[in-house]
Amino acid sequence: MKAVFFDDNLEFVEDYPVPEPAEDEALIKVSLTGICNTDLEIRKGYSGFKGIIGHEFVGVVEKINGRDRGLTGRRVVGEINCGCGLCSYCLRGLKNHCPDRRVLGIVNKDGAMAEYITLPVKNLLKVPENITDEEAVFTEPLAAAFEITRGVHIKPTDKILVMGDGKLGLLCCLVLNLLQADLSLVGKHEDKLKIARGQNVKTILLDNLEMVKNYDTVIESTGSADGFETALKLVRPGGTVVLKSTVAEGREMNLAPVVIDEITVVGSRCGPFELLM
Amino acid sequence: MKAVFFDDNLEFVEDYPVPEPAEDEALIKVSLTGICNTDLEIRKGYSGFKGIIGHEFVGVVEKINGRDRGLTGRRVVGEINCGCGLCSYCLRGLKNHCPDRRVLGIVNKDGAMAEYITLPVKNLLKVPENITDEEAVFTEPLAAAFEITRGVHIKPTDKILVMGDGKLGLLCCLVLNLLQADLSLVGKHEDKLKIARGQNVKTILLDNLEMVKNYDTVIESTGSADGFETALKLVRPGGTVVLKSTVAEGREMNLAPVVIDEITVVGSRCGPFELLM
Repeated sequence: MKAVFFDDNLEFVEDYPVPEPAEDEALIKVSLTGICNTDLEIRKGYSGFKGIIGHEFVGVVEKINGRDRGLTGRRVVGEINCGCGLCSYCLRGLKNHCPDRRVLGIVNKDGAMAEYITLPVKNLLKVPENITDEEAVFTEPLAAAFEITRGVHIKPTDKILVMGDGKLGLLCCLVLNLLQADLSLVGKHEDKLKIARGQNVKTILLDNLEMVKNYDTVIESTGSADGFETALKLVRPGGTVVLKSTVAEGREMNLAPVVIDEITVVGSRCGPFELLM
Repeated sequence: MKAVFFDDNLEFVEDYPVPEPAEDEALIKVSLTGICNTDLEIRKGYSGFKGIIGHEFVGVVEKINGRDRGLTGRRVVGEINCGCGLCSYCLRGLKNHCPDRRVLGIVNKDGAMAEYITLPVKNLLKVPENITDEEAVFTEPLAAAFEITRGVHIKPTDKILVMGDGKLGLLCCLVLNLLQADLSLVGKHEDKLKIARGQNVKTILLDNLEMVKNYDTVIESTGSADGFETALKLVRPGGTVVLKSTVAEGREMNLAPVVIDEITVVGSRCGPFELLM
């Protein structure tokens, strides 16, 4: 099959073997794949991954190795973390943190920039008829945006800033806009900010952003290594910074402001698909 | 008066003017002063402070400019943060985060390595008769250790690691040992670890520490710039790192593990003296 394969270099291959579903896994024909900033970071060495990249997808179940559960022939999206099912994390429902987990297109499991993928049946979610493929392919990053609301208590009286007008930043705005807080998005791209304004989110062009410690919660979704330090200049003392960006490169930084201002920093990664239904 | 004055260099001066207490301030004759790691960091440029250093003290009230409240002649310790009393932080009881605060020996206020200091009367706490000066001088760092319990919910079922066997690390152990959790202290100095063992705290010599993500909460009180990255190698996914160290120097670091492991990082600074009574 055709695939986009990474091993120090990214290459397009035509003769990659179609994967065989293991027990209780489905073979899925990929209809659409999204490109995540994490894919770009993998090219720079993030996670040390080698294999087919890509983890945002929508596809159709071609066959299942095990009990069918009515999925064959259905359009699906899928959670990308595959836990071992046996460790203390999996048993507590924290499969995203299973030390032996495989993650589609990120850790030890070939990803979705290919004609076919396999995933455990329990990771799959049927796509309702009224959702197009072009919408469904955003399920994984949308779930990641919802994960913020599980990690942080955002109150309607809070002043919130989302940093970064990329896909994840825009999805974070869509989600947080449901919470009735005072929400702003800051970014560099007028055309992208316009999308958020269309959803009644206040927007600020980065050049016009006042560097004042004014926000109760700052969501750092710039995908850039210096986003965190900017966030510390914008969050109020006693406030919260939610870290969504994972970048390959390190950066010189000083954490003293976290202590002095008694900031809480919450790392937030993948979200649960079932909460989206 | 005699004082230890910092202005790019630390110098001992003999002719510093005795401070005059402003309205509702006390003039305190200092009996004993402690040395905090923050004092050492100020020498390296932390906080950009110029003036008399020192913020851990016990002393005797010599005179009060305003209503006495029975303090003249009494032994006292004192909270080091002096808020403006008028801003939204002060009005919410968060004077430690007042943007215009002065902090004894750290920000815009001469400190305690001198014969006399001034502090607002409301910052002072009488020292009970049965507490010696040598004990009372630890009030400020002990309150900082108690601050952890205000920022983080530590459960009796938690596995806790305190990193750093300096004064603050040992005081954190004394406080956290009250919470019935599974508590360990890791440090480099056998003689200091012995103090914690005397209080029934488990101790680990740094060379023997297994680098496994095993602890629900890790308290970073090493006072060293690389302590945070070590903490990330020891906290379990979904766990909490409490940052107590403030260091002047920055360091190259990568925050991706905070996101991937969904760690919560809680900056924790000064604690409230009144909770110690």
